[in-house]
Amino acid sequence: MLVTGGLGFIGSNLARRLADAGADVLVLDALQPNGGANRVNLRDFESKLRFREADLRRAEEYEELLPGHEVVFNLAGQVSHIDSMTDPVSDLGANVHAQIVLLEACRRHLAQAKVVFASTRQIYGRPVRFPVDETHPLRPVDVNGINKMAAEEYHSLYHRVYGMRTVSLRLTNTFGPRMRIKDARNTFLGLWIRRAVEDGVFEVWGGRQKRDLTYVEDAVDAFLAAGALEPATGRVFNIGGIPPVTLAELAQQLVEVSGRGRYETKEFPPEFRRIDIGDYFADDRLFRSLTGWAPRFSLREGLKQTVAFYQEYLTDYV
Amino acid sequence: MLVTGGLGFIGSNLARRLADAGADVLVLDALQPNGGANRVNLRDFESKLRFREADLRRAEEYEELLPGHEVVFNLAGQVSHIDSMTDPVSDLGANVHAQIVLLEACRRHLAQAKVVFASTRQIYGRPVRFPVDETHPLRPVDVNGINKMAAEEYHSLYHRVYGMRTVSLRLTNTFGPRMRIKDARNTFLGLWIRRAVEDGVFEVWGGRQKRDLTYVEDAVDAFLAAGALEPATGRVFNIGGIPPVTLAELAQQLVEVSGRGRYETKEFPPEFRRIDIGDYFADDRLFRSLTGWAPRFSLREGLKQTVAFYQEYLTDYV
Repeated sequence: MLVTGGLGFIGSNLARRLADAGADVLVLDALQPNGGANRVNLRDFESKLRFREADLRRAEEYEELLPGHEVVFNLAGQVSHIDSMTDPVSDLGANVHAQIVLLEACRRHLAQAKVVFASTRQIYGRPVRFPVDETHPLRPVDVNGINKMAAEEYHSLYHRVYGMRTVSLRLTNTFGPRMRIKDARNTFLGLWIRRAVEDGVFEVWGGRQKRDLTYVEDAVDAFLAAGALEPATGRVFNIGGIPPVTLAELAQQLVEVSGRGRYETKEFPPEFRRIDIGDYFADDRLFRSLTGWAPRFSLREGLKQTVAFYQEYLTDYV
Repeated sequence: MLVTGGLGFIGSNLARRLADAGADVLVLDALQPNGGANRVNLRDFESKLRFREADLRRAEEYEELLPGHEVVFNLAGQVSHIDSMTDPVSDLGANVHAQIVLLEACRRHLAQAKVVFASTRQIYGRPVRFPVDETHPLRPVDVNGINKMAAEEYHSLYHRVYGMRTVSLRLTNTFGPRMRIKDARNTFLGLWIRRAVEDGVFEVWGGRQKRDLTYVEDAVDAFLAAGALEPATGRVFNIGGIPPVTLAELAQQLVEVSGRGRYETKEFPPEFRRIDIGDYFADDRLFRSLTGWAPRFSLREGLKQTVAFYQEYLTDYV
């Protein structure tokens, strides 16, 4: 099993689960400074899996390691929306260039493997109907969304043209242990959690936007289910999870669960408002019906686990 | 007036028209070896316009030349579908990386200019309804289509986020003087024209596919109309032109008009069939109604002009 972006948030949780289940796991990660990668995420798993630092744009750094893997869990990417606007070229490198080189390398060395790609609800842009199903038009509102859309299309294309066994999961806001909480680059919720654990103040912008969330263990379940899905025909699936809440309700629950911190409601800063998507919640019935996947964690339970983790390991993540 | 890709097929015809009308024209072109650029295309216009060889990915090569232009006619790009499959990274560089760097440079140095982007019907993929209007789903069938889709989305995004005055034209098969005829990289029709002028044999793959075509002077008219369109709000428009014909009918007319050459009907080679889009013809009423644009050339007249051009200048293009 190969996990790209395996030092990152969801990638590391997935790699740990796979290794715990006895799989032979190879983690590739470029350790981009502003990304989700954190060596701490796999510190206690060094003897249970293999790690190679590699920039996916340079196939020569990793292609000899490809043969033999049954599944490529492809979670490498740059996730910050605002960074994609201030540095669109870096986002293109991480989210598009890296992906086409990886797919080409897999086509040459690992043509039979399943490839499960971590896509994102960001490619829908500002939804025009709810809940958002997979037929909703794609109208990304930032460079990150455009680039992730292109990468997802590559995965579907490589099935249609080359018969590669690809599946893409359009993830929504995912949270849990090992997410980046140093700042809001992973998601706004990362910084909220940090502030709550530090007993500080966090800002809720707007507050009335509705979002669904996925606890990371449920996201890991979804990747495993996608890795077992047959046939794998380039299809794309929404992954939702916890029923939608407003950001104000989410902030309130976080404060209650942590028993610390408080929040202030603020107007949306202009540079964020222009790339904000408003409400989002997914219709993920297609994936549920085909795989039997269903979330196991409530919002409260997910937040409880997350807060407990950062209370113990805060210094590793700030 | 700035014309990127201005040594290429449509770009050079546009640059010539602008210069003939007395405009101050700067042409940028990277002179990619397998692209449409040909120094011959502007050989007789060297005193009438300025040219800078520049790779759009390197803003430092051209950004000091940007201020002052009223319109950027943005025709730079890699157009070969099959090359995009055999070398997807180069296609990404030319069609996406170059575009985001250019847009960023325009945002910094030329925020008020109109930017008219040469998009393509390729981003629709294999159409599911006819004629294809701008609301047709985007489902590109090759890497080139995915990359052009991303670049078009950047142009619309830069209007929504930064207020830049962008317009995109989704072109269909365009033909005429100064197209690449050395091989089929520009379009299949380029090679057909070469063979007809050489009194040789060309291959028609399939032959029943319907396509609309645009004669290059009509395409130039469309770019000029788009350059004058107000307001420019990131919108996208189909450009069609000549009513659809089957490829067999097109081949027959070419042979008749040129009075030379002949064709053979062949099965589609597998590596092309898997990225073929089948029929395509555009509904371009939206652009016609907003600008008054309409094609002036019939298929026969366009072919006649084209054949006459290559009878005179064949050695410059083969």
